[in-house]
Amino acid sequence: MTRPTTPRPRRGERGQGKLLLRALGGERIGRPPLWLMRQAGRYLPEYRELRARAGGFLEMCLTPELAVEATLQPVGRYALDAAILFSDILVVPYALGQAVAFSEGEGPVLEPIHDPGGLARLGIAQFETRLAPVYEAVAQVASMLPVGTALIGFAGAPWTVASYVVEGGTSRDFATVKTWALGRPQEFSRLVDLLVEATVEHLARQARAGAEVLQLFDSWAGVLSEAEFDRWCVEPTREIVRRLGQVCPDVPIIGFPRGAGLGYERFVERTGVQAVGLDPAVPLVWAARELQPRCALQGNLDPALLVVGGAALRRQAERILAAWGQGPFIFNLGHGVLPTTPPEHAAELVEIVRAWQG
Amino acid sequence: MTRPTTPRPRRGERGQGKLLLRALGGERIGRPPLWLMRQAGRYLPEYRELRARAGGFLEMCLTPELAVEATLQPVGRYALDAAILFSDILVVPYALGQAVAFSEGEGPVLEPIHDPGGLARLGIAQFETRLAPVYEAVAQVASMLPVGTALIGFAGAPWTVASYVVEGGTSRDFATVKTWALGRPQEFSRLVDLLVEATVEHLARQARAGAEVLQLFDSWAGVLSEAEFDRWCVEPTREIVRRLGQVCPDVPIIGFPRGAGLGYERFVERTGVQAVGLDPAVPLVWAARELQPRCALQGNLDPALLVVGGAALRRQAERILAAWGQGPFIFNLGHGVLPTTPPEHAAELVEIVRAWQG
Repeated sequence: MTRPTTPRPRRGERGQGKLLLRALGGERIGRPPLWLMRQAGRYLPEYRELRARAGGFLEMCLTPELAVEATLQPVGRYALDAAILFSDILVVPYALGQAVAFSEGEGPVLEPIHDPGGLARLGIAQFETRLAPVYEAVAQVASMLPVGTALIGFAGAPWTVASYVVEGGTSRDFATVKTWALGRPQEFSRLVDLLVEATVEHLARQARAGAEVLQLFDSWAGVLSEAEFDRWCVEPTREIVRRLGQVCPDVPIIGFPRGAGLGYERFVERTGVQAVGLDPAVPLVWAARELQPRCALQGNLDPALLVVGGAALRRQAERILAAWGQGPFIFNLGHGVLPTTPPEHAAELVEIVRAWQG
Repeated sequence: MTRPTTPRPRRGERGQGKLLLRALGGERIGRPPLWLMRQAGRYLPEYRELRARAGGFLEMCLTPELAVEATLQPVGRYALDAAILFSDILVVPYALGQAVAFSEGEGPVLEPIHDPGGLARLGIAQFETRLAPVYEAVAQVASMLPVGTALIGFAGAPWTVASYVVEGGTSRDFATVKTWALGRPQEFSRLVDLLVEATVEHLARQARAGAEVLQLFDSWAGVLSEAEFDRWCVEPTREIVRRLGQVCPDVPIIGFPRGAGLGYERFVERTGVQAVGLDPAVPLVWAARELQPRCALQGNLDPALLVVGGAALRRQAERILAAWGQGPFIFNLGHGVLPTTPPEHAAELVEIVRAWQG
């Protein structure tokens, strides 16, 4: 009897292809794929070192060698099942012509746009040129990843990006953008339509350059009232999913309407995403029952548990695995890694998930 | 035939007593009672004038004549169905011995407490003395209100107040307070237990001074994961409701776990509140079906619509009235009045609600 030349797949990893893609194809896998939102970030010493070398944050996103290095750092350290491109959702308004800056410790600062005059300053003329380095970074990462590691491209969803475009940065009450959306919806929808178009273009180009999965971050979906959630989160997402289905039908899409709460179900029903990102507030049993029959789940460990580590981290990670591991599922945090996270706690989590026997 | 000496009650207002108390008693009323969260605030010119005269914000809360004047301003202007005491949730940590300051435009600043050493600095020794002016203000307002207007006292719920105590102000990621709560829950629960005790005391004293309804604001309930929501929002609220039931059983309690989303149902089931405040994201039909059979609803107009006014305001206000007006219901915003609100739009809303024929 001859020994097979390729090693036998381990239990739970016997299927063909990358774990992330299998989960997104609706498959239930022995142990779920794992990656971490903001896995390349300030909690990693190698990232802080790179950041110090790199100059500005936007420059880092737009310099392929730096973006590639940041993208690969956590993959090398933790053997995660996916790399997510190191970039930012605000490269889209930048490419549309808005002034965008990242000041240390204060978050992004944009020259706010909240009327037709401001809208007239935005356009797609320079889009390709400005974002060429991003697609170059995607192509480089795609050629460098380990065999089992999938590459995720991403963009901000139109509502969330619009909130930065209009408010000029992060906001506490979203008063300006909501007032525009509610008071002059026809006018505001011109901004949203432009962002839909730019987002489709941006994601399709990442897919063409080698991204195998696309994620849409709608970080501020939770501040919308019921009707506005449908209009400014669900509908634009559905349109993006529909158009991407025409140009890159084989690339699955993860939608993440963070904080959507009672709106998650409508989001899943109506948008056509292959997976939904869930924040830590989402009840485990509820999501297994109501959402998982319709699409893969991704989430939802509280990032604070990655700061805490130890027994509390293990207990909640195992609860999530038990609740969602029986269906298509991607283990992740419910929100980005906190800068105070000890890197060894991320390693603990990787071990817990890899050791899990569903 | 003799004309009755008291005027006949108008249609829809024929019952005994104040509309707010009737709604909280589970009654469905012809047109619902109305008040506005943060109804005394910067959108009112008379408030800005008072604020300029008053010196600091905390001083304003702790000087009865100023707190009384601010409380009465919106009631006088709009003939609302309730007055809510002008105060702040952070008077509780102040009374427990924490340094609290309000700097113009930057929100509250507290000397943060995040360990047992810090906890040891807090205590109830000075509680009564420090808050005596608040109860004096309640008593004065109670004696001055129009006959049909109910007086609401309030406090922050323990989780929300704890987040300020620990983070030292408003937070973007709640990293410090969540890390404490998740990593050393026994220790953190000493803070929460102290806040439960202080909150019961604070609310009971407001009731004794003349508050007819009590509201608990849990503004940051939405950042908690499922298990933590039960532990730090639902359980402390239930305990406060239970203890208040012993000392002032006739005073109804409105709980407002803002952003609770999929957790609202558990909150209503388990806490025993007489009404639940709902934020703008809560779907109307869902709440009518799942929550209203169990308690009165309060909410949930998006405050941005009060900035917009006109047809958009009327349309959504009427949608809410149609969905919730058939059961016990208190019309309100889903979040505080925005400073950019034109005062005449609040008057429009009052007219819409008062004119509604259920």
